[in-house]
Amino acid sequence: MALISSFTPLLIAILCVVIAFLFKRYKTTESNKATKPRGESRPWVDEDLQDDTEMNSKDNESDDWVVEGTENLTHVPYTPRRFTEEEMLQRSQEFFTLLNQRRSVRFISREPVPREVINDVIRTAGTAPSGAHTEPWTFVVVSDEETKHNIRNIVEEEEEINYKQRMGDKWVQDLKKLRTNWVKEYLDMAPYLILIFKQTYGILPNGKKKTHYYNEISVSISCGLLLAALQNVGLVTVTSTPLNCGPQLRLLLRRPTNEKLLMLLPVGYPAPDATVPDLTRKELDDIMVFV
Amino acid sequence: MALISSFTPLLIAILCVVIAFLFKRYKTTESNKATKPRGESRPWVDEDLQDDTEMNSKDNESDDWVVEGTENLTHVPYTPRRFTEEEMLQRSQEFFTLLNQRRSVRFISREPVPREVINDVIRTAGTAPSGAHTEPWTFVVVSDEETKHNIRNIVEEEEEINYKQRMGDKWVQDLKKLRTNWVKEYLDMAPYLILIFKQTYGILPNGKKKTHYYNEISVSISCGLLLAALQNVGLVTVTSTPLNCGPQLRLLLRRPTNEKLLMLLPVGYPAPDATVPDLTRKELDDIMVFV
Repeated sequence: MALISSFTPLLIAILCVVIAFLFKRYKTTESNKATKPRGESRPWVDEDLQDDTEMNSKDNESDDWVVEGTENLTHVPYTPRRFTEEEMLQRSQEFFTLLNQRRSVRFISREPVPREVINDVIRTAGTAPSGAHTEPWTFVVVSDEETKHNIRNIVEEEEEINYKQRMGDKWVQDLKKLRTNWVKEYLDMAPYLILIFKQTYGILPNGKKKTHYYNEISVSISCGLLLAALQNVGLVTVTSTPLNCGPQLRLLLRRPTNEKLLMLLPVGYPAPDATVPDLTRKELDDIMVFV
Repeated sequence: MALISSFTPLLIAILCVVIAFLFKRYKTTESNKATKPRGESRPWVDEDLQDDTEMNSKDNESDDWVVEGTENLTHVPYTPRRFTEEEMLQRSQEFFTLLNQRRSVRFISREPVPREVINDVIRTAGTAPSGAHTEPWTFVVVSDEETKHNIRNIVEEEEEINYKQRMGDKWVQDLKKLRTNWVKEYLDMAPYLILIFKQTYGILPNGKKKTHYYNEISVSISCGLLLAALQNVGLVTVTSTPLNCGPQLRLLLRRPTNEKLLMLLPVGYPAPDATVPDLTRKELDDIMVFV
């Protein structure tokens, strides 16, 4: 008894340390859960969903996307075409009118679209600015019927899980109404699916990884140019970000691990009976503040 | 002495708990440091830099940006203008040629730019798609000289810190070379600064917060449209993401806490002696994969 008593302080000390350690472990596991969505048991789930390069970049990157080594590059005069004020006004109004007619369209015609037009549209997307001029984008254009159908299967399966999880008990009675949301016929119908991957890092000649700063923002800007280019030729699409099935689609399309799917755009002519919800956009005063 | 001895287990236990607590606190502080760059003692630093709505959204949001309640909205026919294949090809080539001439320009003329053109350009940016049609963007257009200068001071101060931290000991000898990178004269010169804020959440009628899913991607796409619209009228800009000074600029411009600065674009005509680094863009084959 005396022996136990003399050891008591030590025992309590050990107990405390163990409890503190366990508590810390528990907290760590909890916070991991919060950032890692589902799929622990799915073999194809890799680290694709974790991309916080933007968050890590804040401290060690210049903010104006200056290109490293630019100081040593030749600088050339830049003299773009200058328009008169009248021309500018006319062009800005016309461009607004054109883009204001853009809508997300889920009814896409099977009709073929000239391949060269798609090439030009991708070329246009590739003119976007990017952090340190890394051009961190890969555009996978899918016209193969079987691959399109495989993509549809993957996306619909994930969508069904999304909806079921979101709806819980209400699922059964709402099934019919929601069905239209996760059945994506356009993935088979559209002559082209454009899958846009962001390259989260590059590989240096010495084999080391080089972080691509602002890759998500850069690739999203590039998507903006892509949408403008599609609208300019009368093609339609619907912007989708199938994040949960990114890893599966990446494997299907055999893209390397540094590429993560950011967006999937089905592209084609609108179906003759295409409809869109009767939405309006915010007025200029609701989106602009003048100082 | 006997008294002390009998209290020893208790004392040790308390000590352990205190140590464990301190250790945990230390760890928490460390990890905060990793995500929160600098500025613990700066009164204007708030939670602005923490925006992980995209990461949290993956599990509970449909992936095709479907608008909630769309089922109950009237659907209207969508019949945009149809071009012939020849017209499409010509338009896609012309649009590529136009946007391929865009460059990030740091030499901007003081010359005034018609306000109505800026309005149209912002209107155009507002036609971007957004997650659940939340239109989560605010464009702050600054033409006031004093405000522009205050913005310049904030941005340059942060840039200087960035460069100093990045360069470490090499700082002193490289000062002269780097100076051009963090002195941003264009922030005074440009007739307009467009500061683009993403609204990370909205406020529901009942006062509760409503997360804006995919707000960063949406606003970045909208910036893509803005860049295209600027290029279309012959104006220039340089894409910058002044993340570290976001909170200060938000306070300066009196934007609410749900808005976080994503990009800052100085806008104007190029200066007559403007130069750009002699960079090239990747070829189509380097950015496109056809399946």
